[in-house]
Amino acid sequence: MAKQEGEVILLDFWASMFGMRARIALAEKGIHYEYREEDLKNKSQLLLESNPVHKKIPVLIHNGKPVSESSIIVQYIDEVWKDKAPFFSSDPYARAQARFWADFIDKKLYMTGRLLYSTKGEEHEAARKEFMSCLQLLEGELGDKPYFGGESFGYVDISLIPFYTWFQAYETYGNLAIKHECPKLIAWAKRCIQNKESVSKTLPELEQVFGFVQQMRKKIGIEE
Amino acid sequence: MAKQEGEVILLDFWASMFGMRARIALAEKGIHYEYREEDLKNKSQLLLESNPVHKKIPVLIHNGKPVSESSIIVQYIDEVWKDKAPFFSSDPYARAQARFWADFIDKKLYMTGRLLYSTKGEEHEAARKEFMSCLQLLEGELGDKPYFGGESFGYVDISLIPFYTWFQAYETYGNLAIKHECPKLIAWAKRCIQNKESVSKTLPELEQVFGFVQQMRKKIGIEE
Repeated sequence: MAKQEGEVILLDFWASMFGMRARIALAEKGIHYEYREEDLKNKSQLLLESNPVHKKIPVLIHNGKPVSESSIIVQYIDEVWKDKAPFFSSDPYARAQARFWADFIDKKLYMTGRLLYSTKGEEHEAARKEFMSCLQLLEGELGDKPYFGGESFGYVDISLIPFYTWFQAYETYGNLAIKHECPKLIAWAKRCIQNKESVSKTLPELEQVFGFVQQMRKKIGIEE
Repeated sequence: MAKQEGEVILLDFWASMFGMRARIALAEKGIHYEYREEDLKNKSQLLLESNPVHKKIPVLIHNGKPVSESSIIVQYIDEVWKDKAPFFSSDPYARAQARFWADFIDKKLYMTGRLLYSTKGEEHEAARKEFMSCLQLLEGELGDKPYFGGESFGYVDISLIPFYTWFQAYETYGNLAIKHECPKLIAWAKRCIQNKESVSKTLPELEQVFGFVQQMRKKIGIEE
């Protein structure tokens, strides 16, 4: 392991869109690291000690020091390995905009997306509408740019692209036609996969994620 | 107005802890700006156009370009006016830690604090316990340091100090003894007020905030 990198360990879970962000960020910077898959029903002592506040993956442990929360991990990776593939523009306004949309993805898209496969009735109907409205806002923000930040793949792209692996579950359980309603987002996702090895090598197969969500629905008793 | 500052407008509401963060950050940097108080029941066209996604204060408008979400505003202010009173350490790990605690304050302390004055029964009881556990985590993180980042007032201090103005409401409606259980946090809050004019000139009187929360409880029907 190169000395400049130090020891890098990622505590993660394969289907987590938050974990995928950290994996893509590390791959963008070309960092070698040890991937440790966590059993979320029986979390390792290392995870509990490294993230005692939230007890959640992903956790990046760099030279023994843990960093939690995916958006903070991605920013940390960018700041430590700053000489390669910057995730942010140097312009403060563009940086603020990127942080705004990443925060929107966490607060709105993720939270509403969860409801699509875990609720029924009125709550589900409200979530369907809000989820599509979130995606349409992102479709509008992307516009005709190749990536969210413009010409180069960056922070918002890293924050959002893992959600693409959950689209089949969102579409099926939300009864949505994302491909039809958000063609620019779909083209962007395919562009990320085609142009960025950091993405194509990180994202799991869509069917695998769909199967995982299907199992989860059975466990919470919403599907038999 | 100095040319380097450009035109700076803050759309805000006096009792908002999020708005206070932006005001303290601007004061720390010595930025002249126009403060515009919003009527939250009748939001201005400028607010709705500047933050169409969340429609919330605070919004910082710098040379006509809006920045929303208080933590993003504070980071933007730090990055634009970087020559004075930096809010972050230059060390990436310290920066990640600061971002972690600020995020914790937003996700946990704020969300739980809301429940103290807006719920009853079991939900209220659960919120009481979680709120005190949040404060105790912050008490432990502060430890014997003068400020959260160490010797100098920074990002976590800016994120948390506005909550001090809500403590009387939290204590009263949560039936909590914050002063007794978190003496280091209280000493830290008094230190911020005593040592930082940016804080003492920004924070409203505690009684004013308490009166505001009391009125809010009447409006939502939890108090007669």
